[in-house]
Amino acid sequence: MNNRYAVIVAGGSGSRMQSQTPKQFIAVRQLPVLMHTLHRFAQHVLPQKIRLVLPAAHFQTWNELCAQYNFSLPVQVVEGGNSRFQSVRNGLKTIENSSSEALVAIHDGVRPLVSGQVIEQCFEQAQIYGNAVASVALKDSIRQILPDGASQAVDRQLFRLVQTPQTFALPLIAAAYDVEETAFFTDDASVAEAYGATIRLVEGNYENIKITTPEDLAIAEAFLN
Amino acid sequence: MNNRYAVIVAGGSGSRMQSQTPKQFIAVRQLPVLMHTLHRFAQHVLPQKIRLVLPAAHFQTWNELCAQYNFSLPVQVVEGGNSRFQSVRNGLKTIENSSSEALVAIHDGVRPLVSGQVIEQCFEQAQIYGNAVASVALKDSIRQILPDGASQAVDRQLFRLVQTPQTFALPLIAAAYDVEETAFFTDDASVAEAYGATIRLVEGNYENIKITTPEDLAIAEAFLN
Repeated sequence: MNNRYAVIVAGGSGSRMQSQTPKQFIAVRQLPVLMHTLHRFAQHVLPQKIRLVLPAAHFQTWNELCAQYNFSLPVQVVEGGNSRFQSVRNGLKTIENSSSEALVAIHDGVRPLVSGQVIEQCFEQAQIYGNAVASVALKDSIRQILPDGASQAVDRQLFRLVQTPQTFALPLIAAAYDVEETAFFTDDASVAEAYGATIRLVEGNYENIKITTPEDLAIAEAFLN
Repeated sequence: MNNRYAVIVAGGSGSRMQSQTPKQFIAVRQLPVLMHTLHRFAQHVLPQKIRLVLPAAHFQTWNELCAQYNFSLPVQVVEGGNSRFQSVRNGLKTIENSSSEALVAIHDGVRPLVSGQVIEQCFEQAQIYGNAVASVALKDSIRQILPDGASQAVDRQLFRLVQTPQTFALPLIAAAYDVEETAFFTDDASVAEAYGATIRLVEGNYENIKITTPEDLAIAEAFLN
């Protein structure tokens, strides 16, 4: 696993959480969300090759939490930017490896429930295909909003919900991120795609939710039990 | 609320639940899922105007559960068909009301977490617009699968995940269901739409998940706490 890196982005301010504590720092099952996430990745990536991207304003909080929880994984903390795109780019820039074999998994810090199998699959498929993006089928019907505000039923089997990790050959994703940010870049796959990559979807795990609301925290609590 | 009806469909066999008990009968917080659902609707619809559509093979189990849990809402049990479409149609056929003002909420029995506000909103909007369908925004990025098996990023803001209740003017939905079933009819909105209705989307509640897997049960448990 020497050629593997991970960029864990945890830049959210937590405004949607009705909580003073940014969501990645909230403890679930006696451990902050972000530490759960980092522990899962550390099973598949050497800790010193993990980049944790945090807003500078959260560095002190993070250090205090590390002391409080005796968190000792030697991950490298990187200062985030003003958007997820910029935070990922900052994380990627700290990785010095010119090997064409290097791989990097980009993952949301607030997705602590990613399975080890999905992390592993994404690395393995990215090694073969240059990228691998976790995604799941839609359980609900889906409707498309039309320009006039009306909507129409569309076949849900033609769509996939995208999660993270989104794992890439390092040279590919580093080059892809060397562009100006646009509103269309909602994830790393869209950045790689704009650069010309054909995205490879990998089966994700449903539990791997993004914790953005208090209800999500309750779900995570249930899954971690 | 005299002009209101509800058709609650609970036809699933539970094969995905790794459980002998069909999922609608599994107890969460000391009460079978289906009873939670019926109690929520009984706040907004007279119990005797609620149709509970069950496979005939489950009638006895249901009766036993009613005795066991002292469940006394006088809902009318209706025999289901071979598909959700047929079960809904069977339920609708038992409603005898020729008033153009009659409304019917169609709802999945395995969605016990629907909020009272959503049930109410759907009735109120359906009264004005002829239909009202609960839906929520997508939290995750979404990709569309192309005919060649590749995929491409699409703007998630152009899509909505559809839930139930899906509430309709009774004459409209009764007429719409008087057709041959097709694979495209994954919900009631698609049936009404094929009949010519313009669908009205109403903001649903995120907790209102469809319980189809053991993980979903854990989520429901968390939400009901």
